[in-house]
Amino acid sequence: MGEKLLDFWFDFASTYSYPAAQRIGPLASKARVKVRFRPFLLGPIFQAQGWETSPFNLYQAKGRYMWRDLERLCAELDLPFRQPDIFPQQSVLAARVALVGLKLQEKWGKPFCLALFRAEFAEGLRIDDAATIGEILTRLKVDAAPVLEAARSDALRVGLRSETEEAQRLGIFGAPTFITADGEMFWGNDRLERALAWAKRGR
Amino acid sequence: MGEKLLDFWFDFASTYSYPAAQRIGPLASKARVKVRFRPFLLGPIFQAQGWETSPFNLYQAKGRYMWRDLERLCAELDLPFRQPDIFPQQSVLAARVALVGLKLQEKWGKPFCLALFRAEFAEGLRIDDAATIGEILTRLKVDAAPVLEAARSDALRVGLRSETEEAQRLGIFGAPTFITADGEMFWGNDRLERALAWAKRGR
Repeated sequence: MGEKLLDFWFDFASTYSYPAAQRIGPLASKARVKVRFRPFLLGPIFQAQGWETSPFNLYQAKGRYMWRDLERLCAELDLPFRQPDIFPQQSVLAARVALVGLKLQEKWGKPFCLALFRAEFAEGLRIDDAATIGEILTRLKVDAAPVLEAARSDALRVGLRSETEEAQRLGIFGAPTFITADGEMFWGNDRLERALAWAKRGR
Repeated sequence: MGEKLLDFWFDFASTYSYPAAQRIGPLASKARVKVRFRPFLLGPIFQAQGWETSPFNLYQAKGRYMWRDLERLCAELDLPFRQPDIFPQQSVLAARVALVGLKLQEKWGKPFCLALFRAEFAEGLRIDDAATIGEILTRLKVDAAPVLEAARSDALRVGLRSETEEAQRLGIFGAPTFITADGEMFWGNDRLERALAWAKRGR
């Protein structure tokens, strides 16, 4: 019997990754599935599809719908929501900081991800701003300066790039995407329950 | 209190419209919501977005995922499924035939839609073929020849075009799309339950 594992691939710039990140912990724990947070960058994947920005900006009717849909979803989940003034936001530094915590299995890795999404989609903060990221780390009682320094290192630059390359190799085309240990892919916040059910069967 | 009404906008070429069409009747009846079937053509809407074919063909990783996801969904719903050899298929004649039945409030309007989706996504038939459409009508005990003749008339050509224009005016960018009497839009088969719940509140 394989390990009951689910990879949660997300980009901090991705809107539907916000409710997915907030939901996945309690649901996975109920299903007794271990979740790995896998931040990556959608930018290079979108560029390979010929998109220079988010499809929600390129296709305006779809974008308008998405913001309304996200607002409804967050209301349903009792999650605070506020449409950011700038979308999408550069998520590269945030993703590298998250990797520092997640790769080292630091206790703050996942809480940082949740707090970062809330800062962006509920608190109207700029997640491309090192000061905001530093404040989030400080709130989590993490010494921000060495983490930000590590996040800016070559090792983390290469580390995030290789995560993004793996996402691309796996056929990921959007976020959030959930992948089970046996390689089954589920795309979108609304597929989270099905992804967990699949992972739970442990095929 | 407004009428509890939900418009179900779909294109016969749309993959996720297949499970949505099969699911909507029983669910709406349970929610005591009246559903109007609104066939339209996605083609002109996609073309306005710069797409000459389905985004599932333009974006291959997304397309591969969609077929797998649809297969899983149909298995879950116990719906027969077989990936069509040709995708997307020209849905214009099928949509006009459906309009003949739906506009006249004929009893065969909705059953025709369900049967047509099954022919396309479960039986490997070509829905752009008048003979197939005729056979489906015959199975529903409808005299096919006059219906096909009506479907080819100017009135129906204009009728379908004006439905598509209304879809575009409403901001529809994909299918299936559900719109409540108070103008709330829900996109995708996975939003059907939420659309019905909204319609049921009758705001």
